Amino acid sequence: MPKVVSIQQFQKRPFEELRDIFTNDLKHVEEFTRSRLSSDIRLINEMSTYQQDTGGKKLRALLTLASAKLNGYDGISHIHLASCVELIHNATLLHDDVIDNSTKRRGRTTSNIVFGNQASILIGDYLLSRCFEIMVDVGSLEILKLLSSVSAEISQGEVLQLQHEKQININEETYLNIIEKKTSSLFGAATKVGGILGKKSENEKSALLSYGKNLGMAFQITDDILDYFSTKNFGKDIGNDFLENKITLPIIVLFQKANDEEKKIIEGFFKIKGKKTDLDYMLSLFKKYDVMNACKNRARYFSEIASDALGIYKDTKLRKILKELCFDLVNRAN
Amino acid sequence: MPKVVSIQQFQKRPFEELRDIFTNDLKHVEEFTRSRLSSDIRLINEMSTYQQDTGGKKLRALLTLASAKLNGYDGISHIHLASCVELIHNATLLHDDVIDNSTKRRGRTTSNIVFGNQASILIGDYLLSRCFEIMVDVGSLEILKLLSSVSAEISQGEVLQLQHEKQININEETYLNIIEKKTSSLFGAATKVGGILGKKSENEKSALLSYGKNLGMAFQITDDILDYFSTKNFGKDIGNDFLENKITLPIIVLFQKANDEEKKIIEGFFKIKGKKTDLDYMLSLFKKYDVMNACKNRARYFSEIASDALGIYKDTKLRKILKELCFDLVNRAN
Repeated sequence: MPKVVSIQQFQKRPFEELRDIFTNDLKHVEEFTRSRLSSDIRLINEMSTYQQDTGGKKLRALLTLASAKLNGYDGISHIHLASCVELIHNATLLHDDVIDNSTKRRGRTTSNIVFGNQASILIGDYLLSRCFEIMVDVGSLEILKLLSSVSAEISQGEVLQLQHEKQININEETYLNIIEKKTSSLFGAATKVGGILGKKSENEKSALLSYGKNLGMAFQITDDILDYFSTKNFGKDIGNDFLENKITLPIIVLFQKANDEEKKIIEGFFKIKGKKTDLDYMLSLFKKYDVMNACKNRARYFSEIASDALGIYKDTKLRKILKELCFDLVNRAN
Repeated sequence: MPKVVSIQQFQKRPFEELRDIFTNDLKHVEEFTRSRLSSDIRLINEMSTYQQDTGGKKLRALLTLASAKLNGYDGISHIHLASCVELIHNATLLHDDVIDNSTKRRGRTTSNIVFGNQASILIGDYLLSRCFEIMVDVGSLEILKLLSSVSAEISQGEVLQLQHEKQININEETYLNIIEKKTSSLFGAATKVGGILGKKSENEKSALLSYGKNLGMAFQITDDILDYFSTKNFGKDIGNDFLENKITLPIIVLFQKANDEEKKIIEGFFKIKGKKTDLDYMLSLFKKYDVMNACKNRARYFSEIASDALGIYKDTKLRKILKELCFDLVNRAN
């Protein structure tokens, strides 16, 4: 008898659909980025090649490309700006990994381990500078204003995060403020850029910004959830954030729900470097208080706002994919 | 009998004259910078205030202001761009101090020591991002192009320096290439900006760029010399570069002149952390080979080119000061 195959297996997820549509554009983005990063300094080429090869999903670039298409833009600048958005992201990652003393990213050894902290700091600066050069070449003051202010916002988010580091009783609002600055602002810029390129109205540009920003919030929260509850290997180990003493949404939510005795134990965990055995206890508390669902509900809140923001656009296949992406992102955490 | 006082004591040095002329403008630059760096994040305000208070000579800002005046500019953008130039410089210093693990700068404890490496990396990024925001607000694509490419050049210079770190037999050309990228490119931009603001011809803008770049070369070489031969306290100890194992022009020149036996000893010094007793030996070698004068000759070469570059300008008091500055800078090292 033939094996029963579920429809699910034949259906592509929205992210894959997006990637398929923009395969060629994404290749152009990569080629363009490579050419703009190339330098006559050996170490720069080695490091930027390593950084490029590490790859990642390039979700931010895809969003820039998709938004440009959604807004009927048919020039070449979307390729350059998708490159910029990824460069800002990668510059941040390079510095983040130095700051967190991380050893793995996307399943590969991080640049700070391979090339050292000093080189990673400098290459981060280099990527950001090159990114600004590219933006200037594109020549839109509106886009320059948007991306330079997002860049300042990201740094502010990073500093705010550092300021509240290891503060187990951090306010949930403060945490949301941090991820809004450090993650979702760039998502918002990525999607708004398409509207600016397409010369859309202020209302449409606001909708695009809202789509991106809220998608970014859902994305970051889901990322926090996946760190504890992922069943697949995304190049990260389970509970990595805990072992690195990072306080993310699941911990914040748990701490709010835990009883006094549990609170004391959790506080103790975050005073020293996390241990594998402590992680098991944390996972049991997550289960006890159904923290995963509490976090998912928060993510879904942002997903809905993001998805609805595209309501002012015509019902095209691309819009459908972009709307579905908001929910599928959260459903990753299953 | 009255004490004989030399004329020298009554004559202001060109840098002081420059500072006097632009006292007010410089205050505006500082106020503007403070207002643009202010953030609702406590740590950012603390650190940027500390960084601002550390002060420094603000030579780059002064050059921007002076060049704007020399070129007849009478708007307000020179204040904003002088701020940008100092912000790029300060962002670089913050990252440099982390990279070099420095403890003192301008006679004060460095930010990396007071606030930690992590915060210093992030605040460096923050300053650079704010700088780009300001540039975008000024709105000149030519200036944006200039300053973003200088920013990329500085990072490249820093990486090149790291790549040749501790290479005692580094080629003098390579060293000059490093300081051209990491120091003199920003000086060149600072002075060229004035010409762009004043809507001057390409020829005049080239002259200004040449003035600034060559002045920057002379400045950096003099800085290298002063580290070993300064008799005054510039907030630095004598031989600090040596004790930090930094290879600068005096060492490069000495190594080229030294005999085989001395070469071996010098090489040995740079394999381990520098010691005060080794420094004395180095200073005796500097004397033996008259390294200070050899370095000064190199600095003077750049000073002359810088000074002559202003030859196409009318003979005003400001031009005179800017020309004298080139030589006085080198004469500091007495």
